[in-house]
Amino acid sequence: MTAAVAWLAPLAALVGLGVAAFLGTWVLKQDPGNEKMQEISQAIQEGAMAFLKREWRVLIIFAAFVFAALSFSGGSLIKGVLTGASFITGGFLSALAGYIGMYVATRANSRTAQAATEGIHKALNVAFRSGLTMGLTVASFGVLGMGLWTIFLVINGSTPQPEIVNGFAMGASSIALFARVGGGIFTKAADVGADLVGKVEAGIPEDDPRNPAVIADNVGDNVGDVAGMGADLYESYVGSILAPIVLALTLWKGGTVDVQFGVIVPLLIAGAGIIASIIGLFAVRAKEGSNLHLALNTGTYVAAAVEVVAMFGLFSWWAAETEPARLWYFGSVVAGLVAGIAIGQITEYYCSDHYKPVKSIADASQTGAATNIIAGLGVGMISTVGPILVVCAGIWGSYYMGNLAVPGQSTSGIYGIALAALGMLSITAITVGVDAYGPVADNAGGIAEMAEMGPEIRKITDSLDSVGNTTAAIAKGFAIGSAGLTALALFTAFRESVAVGGIKLSLSLENPNIIVGLFLGAMLPYLFAALTMGAVGRAAFAMIGEVRRQFKDIPGLLAGEKGVKADYAKCVDIATAGALREMVLPGILAVAIPIILGIIDLEILAGFLAGAVVSGFLLAIMMANAGGAWDNAKKYIEGGVLGGKGSDAHKAAVVGDTVGDPFKDTSGPAMNILIKLMTVVSLVFVPLFLRVHGG
Amino acid sequence: MTAAVAWLAPLAALVGLGVAAFLGTWVLKQDPGNEKMQEISQAIQEGAMAFLKREWRVLIIFAAFVFAALSFSGGSLIKGVLTGASFITGGFLSALAGYIGMYVATRANSRTAQAATEGIHKALNVAFRSGLTMGLTVASFGVLGMGLWTIFLVINGSTPQPEIVNGFAMGASSIALFARVGGGIFTKAADVGADLVGKVEAGIPEDDPRNPAVIADNVGDNVGDVAGMGADLYESYVGSILAPIVLALTLWKGGTVDVQFGVIVPLLIAGAGIIASIIGLFAVRAKEGSNLHLALNTGTYVAAAVEVVAMFGLFSWWAAETEPARLWYFGSVVAGLVAGIAIGQITEYYCSDHYKPVKSIADASQTGAATNIIAGLGVGMISTVGPILVVCAGIWGSYYMGNLAVPGQSTSGIYGIALAALGMLSITAITVGVDAYGPVADNAGGIAEMAEMGPEIRKITDSLDSVGNTTAAIAKGFAIGSAGLTALALFTAFRESVAVGGIKLSLSLENPNIIVGLFLGAMLPYLFAALTMGAVGRAAFAMIGEVRRQFKDIPGLLAGEKGVKADYAKCVDIATAGALREMVLPGILAVAIPIILGIIDLEILAGFLAGAVVSGFLLAIMMANAGGAWDNAKKYIEGGVLGGKGSDAHKAAVVGDTVGDPFKDTSGPAMNILIKLMTVVSLVFVPLFLRVHGG
Repeated sequence: MTAAVAWLAPLAALVGLGVAAFLGTWVLKQDPGNEKMQEISQAIQEGAMAFLKREWRVLIIFAAFVFAALSFSGGSLIKGVLTGASFITGGFLSALAGYIGMYVATRANSRTAQAATEGIHKALNVAFRSGLTMGLTVASFGVLGMGLWTIFLVINGSTPQPEIVNGFAMGASSIALFARVGGGIFTKAADVGADLVGKVEAGIPEDDPRNPAVIADNVGDNVGDVAGMGADLYESYVGSILAPIVLALTLWKGGTVDVQFGVIVPLLIAGAGIIASIIGLFAVRAKEGSNLHLALNTGTYVAAAVEVVAMFGLFSWWAAETEPARLWYFGSVVAGLVAGIAIGQITEYYCSDHYKPVKSIADASQTGAATNIIAGLGVGMISTVGPILVVCAGIWGSYYMGNLAVPGQSTSGIYGIALAALGMLSITAITVGVDAYGPVADNAGGIAEMAEMGPEIRKITDSLDSVGNTTAAIAKGFAIGSAGLTALALFTAFRESVAVGGIKLSLSLENPNIIVGLFLGAMLPYLFAALTMGAVGRAAFAMIGEVRRQFKDIPGLLAGEKGVKADYAKCVDIATAGALREMVLPGILAVAIPIILGIIDLEILAGFLAGAVVSGFLLAIMMANAGGAWDNAKKYIEGGVLGGKGSDAHKAAVVGDTVGDPFKDTSGPAMNILIKLMTVVSLVFVPLFLRVHGG
Repeated sequence: MTAAVAWLAPLAALVGLGVAAFLGTWVLKQDPGNEKMQEISQAIQEGAMAFLKREWRVLIIFAAFVFAALSFSGGSLIKGVLTGASFITGGFLSALAGYIGMYVATRANSRTAQAATEGIHKALNVAFRSGLTMGLTVASFGVLGMGLWTIFLVINGSTPQPEIVNGFAMGASSIALFARVGGGIFTKAADVGADLVGKVEAGIPEDDPRNPAVIADNVGDNVGDVAGMGADLYESYVGSILAPIVLALTLWKGGTVDVQFGVIVPLLIAGAGIIASIIGLFAVRAKEGSNLHLALNTGTYVAAAVEVVAMFGLFSWWAAETEPARLWYFGSVVAGLVAGIAIGQITEYYCSDHYKPVKSIADASQTGAATNIIAGLGVGMISTVGPILVVCAGIWGSYYMGNLAVPGQSTSGIYGIALAALGMLSITAITVGVDAYGPVADNAGGIAEMAEMGPEIRKITDSLDSVGNTTAAIAKGFAIGSAGLTALALFTAFRESVAVGGIKLSLSLENPNIIVGLFLGAMLPYLFAALTMGAVGRAAFAMIGEVRRQFKDIPGLLAGEKGVKADYAKCVDIATAGALREMVLPGILAVAIPIILGIIDLEILAGFLAGAVVSGFLLAIMMANAGGAWDNAKKYIEGGVLGGKGSDAHKAAVVGDTVGDPFKDTSGPAMNILIKLMTVVSLVFVPLFLRVHGG
């Protein structure tokens, strides 16, 4: 084989970027609607950019610190600085993808609303293509960055230096922390502020332009589901490409022919996923009257099918060049991909109002808020069973197939687990695309409302939005599932890196350090959830105060007098400041605790990471699904059952929905970041730990 | 040394039983009050006995099945049958203790109310001594049973047969399952039924005799906090005596002089704890005007101090007979005892309205039910941090001191962890006593209300009850902490038993079976919590229907006409039937899953147990403390702040309290049972697993 095939991956990324550019340009060429619509859209754009700019200012300080820390912890200074540079590129590309995605999404909203005047088909196309712009950009930047660093420093380097490439993943994780946790706090603070004062106190409808927080609320949708979800999956994606590369270098150290395949194949899996996603994209065709839900899912399924075929080709090639047994690794990749789709389907079952769980929450709302809460928590808890069984089957299957792939070397099964994580994430482009479609449709509805486009248009945007909610649930399932598997794969990479560094850890459950680590690690997600939920409360409180103040201080605002405008920017500003202030403590904990534990004792750190992954995974599923189920139980009642809107059951369901908001949009997703970030930090600081413990 | 010192343990148990008999007789000799009071008390007695009898009927069937299973899985038939017999005695003694405790407690209630007419001092004495009757009976039966089986089969047997003694612990666990999980469902179904229809719908006050569920509600207090908590701590106690015995036999196999000490010392620690508790009991003296809270806690602290002194003597003796280093084990025991008290204090901090957490929940209630729920969940989650740090310090400290105790043999640290668990539980008698005091005081209040004894008496019983709530929180902290440590100790016993059986497990985190096991194990507490919360909902629903029916069908009941009585027994019956029906599925899962996993793969089972202990421990703390905090936030508002009773804040706080009820009284405590039961089942079925896997 020739190492030059590795170049196919960045090539695929360039194709992806080209298609993203084509889609983005197409979206921007659409009719942005009348002046009023453009004006609202522009306010959202400005709000979104204001948030990003302020976030970046904090990020740059944070990055400077980490860069300095990395520079002096990497063994030699040159290696340290290169790791720092790798960190910067990993973060920069994620931030850039977020910027591009937000740029297009916040412009696609009025265009989607306008397209709705021509019918649902056109509107879906605008929204979906803008989502795909984000999806393809995220995936392509990930493959491009990881591909180039890997080609230069691992494949073509005189000695492979994966430690430097680790920095790239840490950059991805850092942006994810800011985008997902900060964004999660922003979006819920704005949402709660807008709802509590506007809808409940002042009695004006959702998305009413008189509400000063309405723009912040719409910005929040983009911040959370475009930038946040994008950065989350980018982090998983990069991590899952990195893990098998590190493992190939450590497991097959000493140089069988497999090392080079082991490093190149992950890049090719990811590259093929981009092409598969593009093919999937073209399979999405909504006709008037067709099932929108099915249309969107078709894209995912087609992409998955194309990826499977491509993978068969890829591993057949590896098998042909080495031994036939290598084809078993194909099974590992497929196991991951199937697990991802299965978790998505399970998530949909628990969060969609077509099935029993959501209906049971709605029923429980008839006896009040307390029974609604208990039912929702129960659904969230029981919804962990399916995904756990699927993930366990995925781990187990990919490991044993991995062992068969390299007969006689049992550790090769670990490489199989890493491939499963990557398999699950291979179609990230379309997964992110389907998710980022949601806020565009949601925003379009807001603009239709504010620009008074009439109930016909609003009905179309509402049905787009409702489809988006379900498909977003699937994306959330993917995000959680992949976070769990990626963190696990990175954890194995951490272990192996320590072992290669010359320190043999005792990772047995007989070792009390491991038990202590497991307890500590399992506790951290609870602490993190409590902190982030509290953060939403405090940030929302500030927002509530500001909305009340504007209603009081701006004469004629609440009455809706002509020419009187709310100070939208101030609300965006408050949400931004609150989000950034509130994420400091959880952020520092997530970065500092693994480093401190690693300096104290590497076995405690290992147990800690395992405990955090397992516990965080469960809490993430529980919180996300309970939140989604509460949300849809409320919408189900609003659809007219059990007394409909305004009934006692509805009031109880609103309580559940309000509890569920920080569950599903802040704390739950924050778990994904937490477990990945902590393992990546541990992996990146292995050189430091080795020095401290004399490896 | 002579093995005869082991007889000191059953001797201490006999002393304990003697004191219990004295206390119980004293309580029964008190004035049971007027006819009306006696009549109500009798209804509670009948209800409690009806529950116990029905529970036992199911238990006997269950026990017959387990007996059969044990008989045929124990290697030889004679060994199997003996294990079954040990199982029966373990369960029978627990059931008997529960019966005695309930017998006295349900008679102490009217006597406490009557004593209140003579002042709070007398009332406290009656309630506390009835609690101590239960506490001493529980502890003494545990030491007696474990002591005798151990003396005959381990110390004096030709070959030690700890596998048979394991059966005793499984008996304890089985009763705990029924008493704690079944009892937890009973008490909350009755409570919710009584509150929702009586207080909310019909608008009659708490403890009103017109409410058909009022007796069931009072029975529930006894079922949950007397029988349930007693069986829970009995299980922990027995398990924590067993674990070091099994470890001594396996760790020091081949016969150093330490084996005999290692087997005898746990019995003596427990025996000394009974005597220490009796001394602590006599230190509890409430004078008029004295701080009741302090008076009750003084008992615990004196008992702990006496135990520490006794332990110093005990380990000095071991050290003198062998090597001075053995004195380090004294440190392990103290570490456990201190950890227990620390967890109790932390629990009080999070659940008492004197501190910030409960006040913050009350504050959050001002903005509605949703913010009350979020704040409560946040408090519950963050309250896991302290106990986890304490437990980790306890594990770590007791392990390293254990290693110093037997220089050159690193595995002896594991014995130190087991001693820490036992140290925490050594003063079980007084811990259970303080807890069982609560429902007696609570019931006394109910009787004072129903018998119209006037506000003066009610005020006294209320202040007794309120003290009981705080001290019960400490007992709950002990119960959870000890469940975690006991399960851990039993887990190590399981591991070592498998190893001694000739199967070397790979328990490393590098092993995917361990990872899969961790995921599965961590998930089970979530499933169990969801099932038990759902069970409460369904059982309460049946109760609500019955109360409504009686109000409708019994003419004059609601109007309070003379001579018209509600059908209390029917409500007790419905709660009993519901509780027993609803615990079948969770019960079967807890017993069957470890057996099935053990037959499939012992490494998965090991990972599973570790995951379940860690995850269950966290969930138990979170649920118990959130529930306690919600409860007291409501009471805090009812005390007159934030608008007091009837205000919007109060309504929101009631929602939190209702959610918290199954948290703190059903699902949370059920976790304690789950994690212990599953490890005990695994330990007991080691002979079966060894046969299956050819050990």
